[in-house]
Amino acid sequence: MRRIRAAILGATGVVGQQFVLALQDHPWFEVATLAASERSAGKTYREALRDERTRAMRWFCNEEPPADALNKTVDDASELDLTKVDVVFSAVESDAAKDLEPQYAEEKPVISTASAYRYFDDVPILIPGVNSEHARLIDVQRKNRGWKGFITTQPNCTTTGLAITLRPLLDCFGIEKVVMTSLQAMSGAGRSPGVIGLDVLDNVIPYIAGEEEKVQKETMKILGTFGGDRIEPAKMGVTCTCTRVNVLDGHTEAVFTSLGRKCSVDDVTDAFLGFGKGLVEELPSAPGQMIVVHEDPFRPQPRLDRDNHDGMATTVGRIREDPVLENGIKYVLVSHNTRMGAAKGAVMIAESLHRSGYI
Amino acid sequence: MRRIRAAILGATGVVGQQFVLALQDHPWFEVATLAASERSAGKTYREALRDERTRAMRWFCNEEPPADALNKTVDDASELDLTKVDVVFSAVESDAAKDLEPQYAEEKPVISTASAYRYFDDVPILIPGVNSEHARLIDVQRKNRGWKGFITTQPNCTTTGLAITLRPLLDCFGIEKVVMTSLQAMSGAGRSPGVIGLDVLDNVIPYIAGEEEKVQKETMKILGTFGGDRIEPAKMGVTCTCTRVNVLDGHTEAVFTSLGRKCSVDDVTDAFLGFGKGLVEELPSAPGQMIVVHEDPFRPQPRLDRDNHDGMATTVGRIREDPVLENGIKYVLVSHNTRMGAAKGAVMIAESLHRSGYI
Amino acid sequence: MRRIRAAILGATGVVGQQFVLALQDHPWFEVATLAASERSAGKTYREALRDERTRAMRWFCNEEPPADALNKTVDDASELDLTKVDVVFSAVESDAAKDLEPQYAEEKPVISTASAYRYFDDVPILIPGVNSEHARLIDVQRKNRGWKGFITTQPNCTTTGLAITLRPLLDCFGIEKVVMTSLQAMSGAGRSPGVIGLDVLDNVIPYIAGEEEKVQKETMKILGTFGGDRIEPAKMGVTCTCTRVNVLDGHTEAVFTSLGRKCSVDDVTDAFLGFGKGLVEELPSAPGQMIVVHEDPFRPQPRLDRDNHDGMATTVGRIREDPVLENGIKYVLVSHNTRMGAAKGAVMIAESLHRSGYI
Amino acid sequence: MRRIRAAILGATGVVGQQFVLALQDHPWFEVATLAASERSAGKTYREALRDERTRAMRWFCNEEPPADALNKTVDDASELDLTKVDVVFSAVESDAAKDLEPQYAEEKPVISTASAYRYFDDVPILIPGVNSEHARLIDVQRKNRGWKGFITTQPNCTTTGLAITLRPLLDCFGIEKVVMTSLQAMSGAGRSPGVIGLDVLDNVIPYIAGEEEKVQKETMKILGTFGGDRIEPAKMGVTCTCTRVNVLDGHTEAVFTSLGRKCSVDDVTDAFLGFGKGLVEELPSAPGQMIVVHEDPFRPQPRLDRDNHDGMATTVGRIREDPVLENGIKYVLVSHNTRMGAAKGAVMIAESLHRSGYI
Repeated sequence: MRRIRAAILGATGVVGQQFVLALQDHPWFEVATLAASERSAGKTYREALRDERTRAMRWFCNEEPPADALNKTVDDASELDLTKVDVVFSAVESDAAKDLEPQYAEEKPVISTASAYRYFDDVPILIPGVNSEHARLIDVQRKNRGWKGFITTQPNCTTTGLAITLRPLLDCFGIEKVVMTSLQAMSGAGRSPGVIGLDVLDNVIPYIAGEEEKVQKETMKILGTFGGDRIEPAKMGVTCTCTRVNVLDGHTEAVFTSLGRKCSVDDVTDAFLGFGKGLVEELPSAPGQMIVVHEDPFRPQPRLDRDNHDGMATTVGRIREDPVLENGIKYVLVSHNTRMGAAKGAVMIAESLHRSGYI
Repeated sequence: MRRIRAAILGATGVVGQQFVLALQDHPWFEVATLAASERSAGKTYREALRDERTRAMRWFCNEEPPADALNKTVDDASELDLTKVDVVFSAVESDAAKDLEPQYAEEKPVISTASAYRYFDDVPILIPGVNSEHARLIDVQRKNRGWKGFITTQPNCTTTGLAITLRPLLDCFGIEKVVMTSLQAMSGAGRSPGVIGLDVLDNVIPYIAGEEEKVQKETMKILGTFGGDRIEPAKMGVTCTCTRVNVLDGHTEAVFTSLGRKCSVDDVTDAFLGFGKGLVEELPSAPGQMIVVHEDPFRPQPRLDRDNHDGMATTVGRIREDPVLENGIKYVLVSHNTRMGAAKGAVMIAESLHRSGYI
Repeated sequence: MRRIRAAILGATGVVGQQFVLALQDHPWFEVATLAASERSAGKTYREALRDERTRAMRWFCNEEPPADALNKTVDDASELDLTKVDVVFSAVESDAAKDLEPQYAEEKPVISTASAYRYFDDVPILIPGVNSEHARLIDVQRKNRGWKGFITTQPNCTTTGLAITLRPLLDCFGIEKVVMTSLQAMSGAGRSPGVIGLDVLDNVIPYIAGEEEKVQKETMKILGTFGGDRIEPAKMGVTCTCTRVNVLDGHTEAVFTSLGRKCSVDDVTDAFLGFGKGLVEELPSAPGQMIVVHEDPFRPQPRLDRDNHDGMATTVGRIREDPVLENGIKYVLVSHNTRMGAAKGAVMIAESLHRSGYI
Repeated sequence: MRRIRAAILGATGVVGQQFVLALQDHPWFEVATLAASERSAGKTYREALRDERTRAMRWFCNEEPPADALNKTVDDASELDLTKVDVVFSAVESDAAKDLEPQYAEEKPVISTASAYRYFDDVPILIPGVNSEHARLIDVQRKNRGWKGFITTQPNCTTTGLAITLRPLLDCFGIEKVVMTSLQAMSGAGRSPGVIGLDVLDNVIPYIAGEEEKVQKETMKILGTFGGDRIEPAKMGVTCTCTRVNVLDGHTEAVFTSLGRKCSVDDVTDAFLGFGKGLVEELPSAPGQMIVVHEDPFRPQPRLDRDNHDGMATTVGRIREDPVLENGIKYVLVSHNTRMGAAKGAVMIAESLHRSGYI
C-alpha cells in the first residue's frame, strides 16, 4: 500500500514536533512535508530548530527527533505544494489557522488542533470511538462550502478526557449534570511563553482564559447527536472551574455527575472498562484500553498515569457514589493533554477517517 | 488585667510551634507552660527542638522562635500542673488527644486542633463569627460530663474556609447543595512524614484519607442550629473531592453551590464583603476583613493570598453564576491551613470564649 | 530636611516595582517620578499595571503596592523632567539603559541595576561596605565626560553575595583562588519570559548566558583597589559555573576558596561576623548584620534565609576546611537576588552616596 | 545456558524494586528469590507490597511490576535457601547489610548497594569499565576471610558519575585536583521518609549527612591502583559540596578539575567520547555510549538526560577551559542515581564479574 503523505503545518512548534513523533514509523502515514513560517522555510528542520544565539536545539519533546525529519527541508506553511500531500495536520495557532486551514481544505483533508473552526456548525469535533459518526458532518461541510477537502477538529485538551469518560456513562445511564474542576498541566499552555515558572511554583492559578467555556460547549457538542445535517448538542448541563497546577503533563479532573438513573460503583466501573472495544484493532494509535480504572484510591496521578498506553488512555479512579447530586457518581480522571489531547489524538482522528473513507 | 495563662500540649510539634508564635505578644494570653512528650520534659525548649545527631534546630515556621520560649523548661504533657494554667491549647495527635484532653477538661478549658472529640454530640466545632453561639453547647457538655472545664474543637483545616464562605450565603440566600474540590497544601499533612517530595513533585495526589468525610460532616455541623441541648446539622448537601498539590501553605477550593434563591454575582460579593463585621474590634486575632474578594480572575492564588490579614482572612475570587446548578453560584477560595486553619484560629476561638465568659 | 526626590525608570517592570517598595516610607528619599515606556505614559500607575485583556493587575511583588504610587501619573522614561528629580534609579533593560542613562547622567546621579555601563573603566560597581571607596571613581567619570551627574552601577545579583563574603576573607587572610557553583533562583531571570515553568520543573538548567563571565569580572573589579584614577582589579582567580534551580528567590552559592594563609573555621566565622559593623547605623536600608552565620549544617537554605534582615543580609553556613585547595576554606551562601541583589541594594548605594556627599 | 539464579535482599524496598525491573527479561540472570523482612515473608510479592490500611500498592517505579514477580512468594531475608541461589543482590539498609551480607558471602557472591563494607581494605567498589581490574581484590578477600563467595560493592550514587568522567581524564591527562558541587535528586534519599515535600519545595538543602566524605573517599579508591593485594588510592585531591534540589531523579554535578597537563576542550571531549568502548558488546546492561557529550550549553539537564541509554550513560556538557585552576577544565555532568547509580549498575557489576569468571 502506498503510504498516505502528510503535511505538518507549524512543524517547528511544540505541537508540530509532537506530530513528527506521532507519525514516526506510522504504518499508514508518512511525513511528506514539514511546513513552518517564512523564516524557517528553506532551512533543514535541524537548522530551523536551532537557536542561533545560544546554539541550543529548540526541541521540546523527551524523545529524540527522528534523524530523517532533521534532514528534511522545511516548506513555507502559506504555500504548500498540495500535489505532494494527501492530508494536512495543522498545529498552528488559531490566528494562522483561520486563514491557512480553509485554503488547504478546498483540496485536502485538514485535521486541526486549533480552535479556529471548532465551533462552526458544519465542522465536527472528533474523538474516535466517542463520536466517530460525527464524521458525516464532513459531507454537509463539503456541500456547504464546495470543498473537495474538509476541516475537522480535535477538542481542547481538557475536554478530551471528560468527554471520553462521559460517553459510556451517557450510553449506559444517561447524564443530567456534570460538575468538573480541572487541575491542568503546564504543557497545555505551550511555550510562548506558556506558564512562567515564577507564577506557578508553590502555587495554583485558578483561571485559564476561555477554557471553561470551551469545555462546557465542546462536551455538549461532542456528546450530541448527528441528525443528518447538523449536530444536536447533548441535553445535559456541564459546569467547570479550570485551574493550572505545577505539573508538566497530564490534566487531572475531579468530576461529579448526576446520572439518569441510580447506579453503583460497580456499574460505573463496568461501563468504563467496557468502553471502546474494537478501536484498538482498527486504529494503530488507539490505546489497548480506552479507559483504565484504578481501585487504589491514590490513583490516578498525573505523573504515574499520564503515559498509560503511550498517553492515549484516559485513567480513572476514586469512583464513588455522590451523597448530594441525584443519582450521583463522582470520580477523578487523568488524561495526557499532549498525547491523546493533541498531536497523537489528531493522528488517531486521521486513522479513523481513513477507515471510514474520508481520507 | 492579669494575663490568661496558657499551656500548649505538643509544643515541640509543628502545630505546637505555631501556637507559640500565635501567642507571642498576645494582649490577653501568655504562654505559661510548654508541654511535650516525656522525652522532651525537663529540657529547655531550645534543647528539645535540637536534633542531636545533625545539630539542626527542628523549628518549622518561617518566623524565628521567640527567645523567651526557647529558654523555658518543657513540661511532661501527661502531667500538667493545672494550678499554673487557665486554658489548654492542645496540638497533639488524635490518639494522644483522646486521653489527655478529657483529663484536663475536668478542670480547665481545652481548645483542641485534633479531631478526637470533634464529632461528639456535646462538643462544638467553633469558628468565631460563623457559629459563635455553638459555644453554648459547652454548658450541655459540662452538665453531661460533670466537668468544670470543657473541650472545644476547631474544624479540619479544609472545612474552615468552606464554612466561612458558606455562612453568609446561607444567611442571605439559603443553600441547597455544595460541590467542592480542594487543592490542598502539603503543610496540612504535617511532617511525620507528611507528604514525601518524591510523591508530589510534578504531580497531584487525588486522595487524602478521611478528609472528604470530615469536610462533609463538619460543614453541616458548623452551619447547623443550636437547639438548646444539641446541634441540628444544616439541611444542605455537601460533597467534595480532596486532592493534594505541590504547595507549601494555603488550601485552594473550587466551590459550586446551589443556593436557596436566584442571586447575582454582585449579591454574592456583597454578602461576602459584609460578613464578619464587628469581629475585628472584639478579637485580637481576627482579620481586618473576614472574607477578602478579588475581581482579578487570576486570584485567589495560594502563594499570593494565603497571608492576607496574617493568614486569618479567607480570600475569594472568580465569583460566577453557575450554568448548571439551580440558583447556582461558583467561586474559588484560598484559606491558610496553618493560620486560620490551625493554631492562630484556635487562639481566636479562645479569644471568643473569653469574650463570652467561658474562659 | 527636604526629602531627596527620586525617579524610577522602568517603574512598571519587576525591578521597578521593587524600587517602589524599597523607597516606600524611606526616611531620606521620596518617589517623585514613576517613568516607563511611552505606552504607559499619561496613565495612572494603577492603569499602567493593569492587563487590559484579562483585567489582572501585573504587580509581581508579594507586598501590596502603595496606594499613593498607584494613583501617580506615569511619565515617559525618555523625557524626564529633571527639574523635579534629584536622583534617578534605573531599572530598565540594558538596551534601553545604554541610551537613557547617559542622557540623565549629564545632570543627575543615576543608580543603575542594568549591566550597560558596569564594565566601563570610569564607572564603579558599588556595594556599600564592600568597596564604598570606589565611589571616588565618580570624580574621574565626571571629569572624563563633563557631566554634572554620574552613572554608578550595582553588580549582577550573583556577584553580590560572593563579593560580600569574599571581602572579609580578602582583608583578613588574602585570597588566591575562588571556585564557585551557583544554584540561582528564577526571579533573577525576570518575566520576559524569564524561566518557563515547563523547563525548570523537576530539573536544573546548567547554563545562564553571560552570567559566569559577569561574576568573574565583577568580583575582581569590586574587590580591586582604587588607585586615584582607576580601579586595579583584585589579584585573585575567580571561576564559576552558574545554574538555575526551581526556587523563587534567593541565590545559593557553593564557594571553595584558597586563601592567602592557613586559617581555621573559627577564624573565618569571626571574619564574617565582624564584617560591616557601622553600616547599619549609617544607612537606613543596611541589614542589622551584613553576614549572618549558621552553625546548623542544613542552613543556609534559600527559602528560610533569603529574607534575613529584610533580604539585605548574606547568610553563610557549612564553613569547613577544604582538603584540597591550598589554605582552603569552603562554605555555602544564600543572598536575596531581588532585595540586596537588586532594587533595595541600589537604594542602599544611593544612601551611601548621600552620606559621602555624591547625592 | 542455564540462567544464573539471583536472590534480591530487600525486595520490597525502592532499590529492591529496581532490581526486580533491572533483572526482568535479563539474558543471563533470573530472579529466583525475592527476600524481605520477616513481616513480608510467606506473602506473595503482590501482598507484601500492598498497604493494608489504604489498599495502595507500594510500588515506587514508573514501570509496572512484572506479573511473575507479583505472584512469587517472598522469603525471609535472614534465612535464604542458598541451594537455590547463585548470586545475591543486596538492597537492604547498611545496618541490615552488616549482618546479612557476610552470612551469605561465605557461600555465594554478594553484590551490594549498601555502604556497610565499601571502605574495607579487601572489598572493592566496582564500576565496570572504570576499574574492572579491582575485581581481583576478591581473591584477597576470599583468602583473608576463608569464604567461597565474596562481597563486592557499588559506589554511592553521587560518586558514580564523577568517577566515570574522571577515569578518561586521569588516563589521558592525569588529574591533580577535583572540586565538585552536586545538585542531587530526591530519590537518592529514598522514602523512609526521604526528603519531605515541605522541606524541598522552593528550596535547596545544602547538606547531605556523610555524603561528601563518601564521595571524596570512594573516588580516590575507585581510581586507585590494584597492587596485587590492596588498592592504592589515586593520588589526587577531591573536594565537594553536596546539595539536594527539587528533582526526582538524576544527580547533576558541576566539576572543576586541575589536570596533569594542559589540554583543550576538544581533547577532553575526545577523551570522554572514546571511553568505555567494548563494554557495550560485552555486558547486556552497559550503555551504548558510556559518556554522552552535549555541545548545547543548556545541557545536560537531569530531566532531559537522566534516561540516556536507559539511565546507564553519564551525560556531560559545558566543557570549558577553567581560568583559575592549573591546566583547568570544568564541566557539568548528569548521572541517573537510581539506574547506573543503583540497581541496574549493580546488575552490570554482576555481568562484568560473570564475564571475568567470579560469578
